[in-house]
Amino acid sequence: MTPTTMFQHPPFLFTYSRHFLRRRHAGHHLSTPPIRHRFLSTITHTLSHPIYTIWAANTGLGKTLVSTGLAASSLHSSSPSPSKLVYIKPLQTGFPLDSDSAFIYRKVPQILLLRNPQSTLLASNQTLNVSVPAAKLKIGNNFSEEGQSSKNGFETSGYYEERKLGIGEEVQSELICKTMYAWKEAISPHLAAEREGSNVEDSDVLVMLKKCLETGIGSKGDERTTVLCLVETAGGVASPGSTGSLQCDLYRPFRLPSILVGDGRLGGISGTISAYESLTIRGYDVVAIVLEDHGLQNELPLLSYLRNRVPVLVVPSIPKDPLDNLMEWFDESKSVFDSLMGIMMSSHEKRIARLHEMPKKAQEIFWWPFTQHKLVPEQKVTVIDSRCGENFAIHKVKDHECITEMFDACASWWTQGPNAALQIKLARDMGYTAARFGHVMFPENVYEPALECAELLLQGVGKGWASRVYFSDNGSTAVEIALKMAFRKFLVDNFDLSQGNIELKVIALKGSYHGDTLGAMDAQAPSPYTGFLQQPWYTGRGFFLDPPLVSMCDGIWKVTIPGEMAAENVILKDTSFKSRDEVFNKSRDDSSLASLYSSYISQELQINSGSENSYYAGALIIEPVIQGAGGMLMVDPLFQRLLVKKCQNHKIPVIFDEVFTGFWRLGVQSAAELLLCQPDIACYAKLMTGGVIPLAVTLATNDVFESFVGDSKLKALLHGHSYSAHALGCAAACSSIKWFKDSQTNPNLIPQQNLLKELWDRELVEKISFHPAVQRVVSLGTLFVLELRVEDNEAGYASQCASSLLVKLREDGIYMRPLGNVIYMMCGPCTSSHLCLQMLERLYTRLNEFRHEKSLKGREM
Amino acid sequence: MTPTTMFQHPPFLFTYSRHFLRRRHAGHHLSTPPIRHRFLSTITHTLSHPIYTIWAANTGLGKTLVSTGLAASSLHSSSPSPSKLVYIKPLQTGFPLDSDSAFIYRKVPQILLLRNPQSTLLASNQTLNVSVPAAKLKIGNNFSEEGQSSKNGFETSGYYEERKLGIGEEVQSELICKTMYAWKEAISPHLAAEREGSNVEDSDVLVMLKKCLETGIGSKGDERTTVLCLVETAGGVASPGSTGSLQCDLYRPFRLPSILVGDGRLGGISGTISAYESLTIRGYDVVAIVLEDHGLQNELPLLSYLRNRVPVLVVPSIPKDPLDNLMEWFDESKSVFDSLMGIMMSSHEKRIARLHEMPKKAQEIFWWPFTQHKLVPEQKVTVIDSRCGENFAIHKVKDHECITEMFDACASWWTQGPNAALQIKLARDMGYTAARFGHVMFPENVYEPALECAELLLQGVGKGWASRVYFSDNGSTAVEIALKMAFRKFLVDNFDLSQGNIELKVIALKGSYHGDTLGAMDAQAPSPYTGFLQQPWYTGRGFFLDPPLVSMCDGIWKVTIPGEMAAENVILKDTSFKSRDEVFNKSRDDSSLASLYSSYISQELQINSGSENSYYAGALIIEPVIQGAGGMLMVDPLFQRLLVKKCQNHKIPVIFDEVFTGFWRLGVQSAAELLLCQPDIACYAKLMTGGVIPLAVTLATNDVFESFVGDSKLKALLHGHSYSAHALGCAAACSSIKWFKDSQTNPNLIPQQNLLKELWDRELVEKISFHPAVQRVVSLGTLFVLELRVEDNEAGYASQCASSLLVKLREDGIYMRPLGNVIYMMCGPCTSSHLCLQMLERLYTRLNEFRHEKSLKGREM
Repeated sequence: MTPTTMFQHPPFLFTYSRHFLRRRHAGHHLSTPPIRHRFLSTITHTLSHPIYTIWAANTGLGKTLVSTGLAASSLHSSSPSPSKLVYIKPLQTGFPLDSDSAFIYRKVPQILLLRNPQSTLLASNQTLNVSVPAAKLKIGNNFSEEGQSSKNGFETSGYYEERKLGIGEEVQSELICKTMYAWKEAISPHLAAEREGSNVEDSDVLVMLKKCLETGIGSKGDERTTVLCLVETAGGVASPGSTGSLQCDLYRPFRLPSILVGDGRLGGISGTISAYESLTIRGYDVVAIVLEDHGLQNELPLLSYLRNRVPVLVVPSIPKDPLDNLMEWFDESKSVFDSLMGIMMSSHEKRIARLHEMPKKAQEIFWWPFTQHKLVPEQKVTVIDSRCGENFAIHKVKDHECITEMFDACASWWTQGPNAALQIKLARDMGYTAARFGHVMFPENVYEPALECAELLLQGVGKGWASRVYFSDNGSTAVEIALKMAFRKFLVDNFDLSQGNIELKVIALKGSYHGDTLGAMDAQAPSPYTGFLQQPWYTGRGFFLDPPLVSMCDGIWKVTIPGEMAAENVILKDTSFKSRDEVFNKSRDDSSLASLYSSYISQELQINSGSENSYYAGALIIEPVIQGAGGMLMVDPLFQRLLVKKCQNHKIPVIFDEVFTGFWRLGVQSAAELLLCQPDIACYAKLMTGGVIPLAVTLATNDVFESFVGDSKLKALLHGHSYSAHALGCAAACSSIKWFKDSQTNPNLIPQQNLLKELWDRELVEKISFHPAVQRVVSLGTLFVLELRVEDNEAGYASQCASSLLVKLREDGIYMRPLGNVIYMMCGPCTSSHLCLQMLERLYTRLNEFRHEKSLKGREM
Repeated sequence: MTPTTMFQHPPFLFTYSRHFLRRRHAGHHLSTPPIRHRFLSTITHTLSHPIYTIWAANTGLGKTLVSTGLAASSLHSSSPSPSKLVYIKPLQTGFPLDSDSAFIYRKVPQILLLRNPQSTLLASNQTLNVSVPAAKLKIGNNFSEEGQSSKNGFETSGYYEERKLGIGEEVQSELICKTMYAWKEAISPHLAAEREGSNVEDSDVLVMLKKCLETGIGSKGDERTTVLCLVETAGGVASPGSTGSLQCDLYRPFRLPSILVGDGRLGGISGTISAYESLTIRGYDVVAIVLEDHGLQNELPLLSYLRNRVPVLVVPSIPKDPLDNLMEWFDESKSVFDSLMGIMMSSHEKRIARLHEMPKKAQEIFWWPFTQHKLVPEQKVTVIDSRCGENFAIHKVKDHECITEMFDACASWWTQGPNAALQIKLARDMGYTAARFGHVMFPENVYEPALECAELLLQGVGKGWASRVYFSDNGSTAVEIALKMAFRKFLVDNFDLSQGNIELKVIALKGSYHGDTLGAMDAQAPSPYTGFLQQPWYTGRGFFLDPPLVSMCDGIWKVTIPGEMAAENVILKDTSFKSRDEVFNKSRDDSSLASLYSSYISQELQINSGSENSYYAGALIIEPVIQGAGGMLMVDPLFQRLLVKKCQNHKIPVIFDEVFTGFWRLGVQSAAELLLCQPDIACYAKLMTGGVIPLAVTLATNDVFESFVGDSKLKALLHGHSYSAHALGCAAACSSIKWFKDSQTNPNLIPQQNLLKELWDRELVEKISFHPAVQRVVSLGTLFVLELRVEDNEAGYASQCASSLLVKLREDGIYMRPLGNVIYMMCGPCTSSHLCLQMLERLYTRLNEFRHEKSLKGREM
């Protein structure tokens, strides 16, 4: 369905070779993408001054001339205050012969002098890491040779030069040029790094760039200074960096505003537009396009394409003579670079102004769900500038205005799964699918994304039991559809349909939650969500069992039996476990606890069966293993399994609401795998699309489907939503389902066992469970849950007791949301356990402070 | 929010000019995009043989050499059956010196002879349209000069040459080369066309290409022959065609599978990836990438990027010497081209096989909504290969296997609005937004797409009354939220909330429909959707008024008064209208009909007010003007306006369900504009995102919002869905809202009046209303409705009476779906009235046949 899946042969490459076809298996570039060991909140950059990335549509289009022209314009400012230009070249090849930062370091003072002989300027140029082969060539250049040392194939110091222009004591302006990594050969960085034995990881490039931006722009003291910072990439937008990652992907976590140097030559319109599109479908904002005049007026079709929303600037033809010192050209181009500077400055100001007004506007016109607006003052509103994989990029104004990363540990209401690589793939897939299909009518039709999605679901979460896929929009609608299916099946199996209406109820568990539309609400027990003022039409059409719960307390996994069952004075055995795995063990079916459960369930079913009442139990609906919105409650899987079997024996159709639990949330594709039994109907949503777009499905067995087949349309299931099986949702689901279950793309997958490796450090989880502030913990799959120990009056959904803890964790770069006194952290199926460990560690530290704070408060009271 | 909106200055272009900044206002390229007068079902192409487009990442990368190599491989087949190669060059510049089709015509026989001296081949080369300046240069070339004629700046005949290879009687193989349009200057076609005064419209290029494919591939008789057809583009993928449209946009309606010629040079990885992405985000499938070896192994990062899903082929370095006859190079490259041919053939076969199996698979695993599966045999399943603007591209197997266009006249369940240009923009926006945001948490947060969307809604459909935006997923959820809002507001206004539960009902109209979840269903009158077997929990919590309806019958707009009201023996005046505009006239408030309505409404409100009953009417919910799913019923706007006012006087909150009627569906942005009154709450969905993705909003006044503000979270509106205000949906809404209301992009908009011009030809609509088979018609905005005159037992939702008519209209290229005996055609807000007229004409023709058929049937009975 995606553009690339049509061709399903194994990886190959065809190339000529002496009249024979040779299949050349590619080298290390074709292996699993490298896992970046990113750290929490690595990426942050200031907004006090503008920082731009200079990209180009191709190599050799004059990126460095544009940087030079901009540098000269920004330093030759007419304002009396000092100005500073920071130029960073992260990756340089052909060094030292080619050095863009050296070019700017030499050229800008020349231009400034020519424009104003009284110019004063402090200029410096530094190359931070030079490959060993390039370092050997340094003789003959004017770098100092002191203090060099070699590391990872780079020499790391001594490449610093500076000069001063003008004679005044006070230096008016400053030019700082930096090359981060340099290689000798004038080829792509990924080739040079390989050939010269000096590799640098993507994450190191990012950290180094962050440092260079920080030191270059300087501390807050610089507010009087006009600073412009330019980061110049190497080659074209999608040219590989040092590890082979495309530069447009590599620098994405910063998402700096961009200038694109286009191509003014014959054929250059196409290359410029394509490069613009490659930036755009990675979420970059291109603020302006600059191109060289080749007499072809390429700017006109470009402006037409851009619908005049992005300015296009044309610089004069660049002299071809290598001996030309370009002074005349820079003179001729001055007005264009001045305009470009103006555009960049004003775009930056507009961005800042917008970021500042957003919280207030949001407060004034949004109506947030599940939010008491009175409790959210303007300063509590978070401005999300973008997301990259698991991280938000947040606008922060406290202390120092910046964009900074925050781990989305609530997984944006449990929807999220993608890492940065999957997000970019999904972006491409969304573009492709919108262009190929937009949305098309579903009933009686078939189109690739819907069909492939249905196939993948039946081969995946529905394998072994489901045979039909019913699409809808969200968990709530999927549940309403499931109920309609279950009731019909129940009626067909158990009644003569001509005998008229019967009152039907569901069997459900207390603490369960199945969605916010009325039908889904009626299937859940009374709760804060169902009160008369919330939903005057709620009637609670179910009988609701109190389930036994499991959690780790003080290092031990334990079952808590609800009062109803425990009251029977049976001595409770088999309620503690050495490990979590034991909880899920099938052998528990023979335990004494199983007998207790069984008799309780039988008794309840009997009390609530039709013969003694005016109503019938027409369906069982459960959230397998974890009840999410109810407070991340882990239900004893043994209890759920026995309940499912009893219902199926009574011909009561069973619905699994896997909206939260499905698609690796609990470490397995479907939570049914943990329960070791199968439903008749199941609902999926949230993580199914990888967390990019709403889509839900209700899967059903063939028996369920058959109860809707007949001669009349009126017997069919008459429920649908306009965007049923919309192509974008289906395409996102196809990509995500395949991505998560492929060990080539998901490093957490244990392929043979088809489950995720343990993501939350067992030892630390245990340690946390001993913490005095902690009531219980559960760690399972991508989920870590912690219930704070509170007084009874502090518990429950409306509790604010966790807020001080969560505020501190947000300062640590972890974005969490509470469920009353229950807090949780959620990662994606591909998130590294390394990151999860860091989050647990920060949580543990903050828990100690939290406890201390609480005890202080207690004393005050 | 979109990448381009950040910069909101008026259109401009900066360029250098003798030391002065000059703002150069661009020429015709910057004007409104040309309106293509497309005809219904223009585009169709065979699937009997593979047709590929050859694209390139840039100019000068050897597209024509690839075409030549492929041609030689395909004609030098070892199979004993004849083979045919059709090569089409739609746009050629630099003619006649440069002629890619002439090159192939000359070169391929040379190669074949060298490979096998016994080769037989009939080769021809034809140039169909030559610009006058290029035609003047024809002296010296070997085209015949007979029968030339000049049209639109082109000479159109006489450019034909052919030759025969080998001496056998039976010609084994055939090479057909065609250039469609040729210009003299070796520049981009849009410049050449302008300079040489020989323009060709995009739509003409498409029609010509369709013809060339048809004549080239030949009739069905060719099944024994292996045919490969190549369409070679000019320059890079996004190089402009003759009108300035980018070629990747121009050829999109065909969506032919593609071969991309990449760039093996330094910097070429980037250009190749970007070109690939430009094709991909226009919905093309790239089957293989070919590139020239420049010793840089560009194929390795490409394969890594492509995750080995698309084969990459490397051809040897191309000799630079212009005197080289390339025979050696073709020899060396043979294996690569043979492989490429194999890949293309097998990909084509796989595509066909998949298209063939799709209907059966769909039948086996889909569970379509609102569909009785027993009534949909495999042959009734439509395979939608793609959509482009308002058209589906359908796989057709009858007679001749092909992909053919069909106008989506059901607007895919009333969701659709985009034309081809908006669809491509939305595709780019979806890519950008997925890459920038994916989906991020909404409550207590703010991010650009959600904020801009809310701003646009309050400035647009909510202008003058709404002050808050509540996001959800679809019309049904938006209605459930609206009901919760209305009830709370009603309770706060009218009751002491501590007094306990009260039974609340809605006031609604019979025939209305508000969605399929239980809460929305309970707000509608009993219908086929609400029966016990469909929804055992349906109770119908409303009192349902029978509304007066309006339609055109026999050329006159008339009100039909329901029995309840009419029974009062009042003489009915003011029930016929000269025009539709009169129906909406505010002056009707003073008519005698208004008095009748008023007293009826007052009476009903009194009967159903709380004092006399155990329940209260807590909300009014209506679909303004048109009740969609109920059968496209037009309700008398006067009646709705009086009802709204009465309710508001009684402090009963009023909900407009604009899910169907909103966003230009009825020719105005909001149907409230037609009713001339405003609600307290309104719901929007469907067309809001331009029809690409599900998103819904419930707008509310500040008074309604205030009834949820308090100190406790429990007083807040506790209803939400995981993907609340998801970024992709909001971004699509922003783009679409702006596109439709901008006369630069929407040619149907009358800017001063802020409404759409009449799309359905008034005369023909009137004529249809006189047709004996027609009960009534309504035409309003993008909607044309027709109710077939049937016997009572044939009416209603389950009626199949329209099916024979609709089958014929599908043959005419119009995809419609019935609502029982009501059929309708729906276009987008930007669709040309020219197309609407064509559809009405075809409908009229088929109506005559339908009637004839019916009368025959009647006689048989």
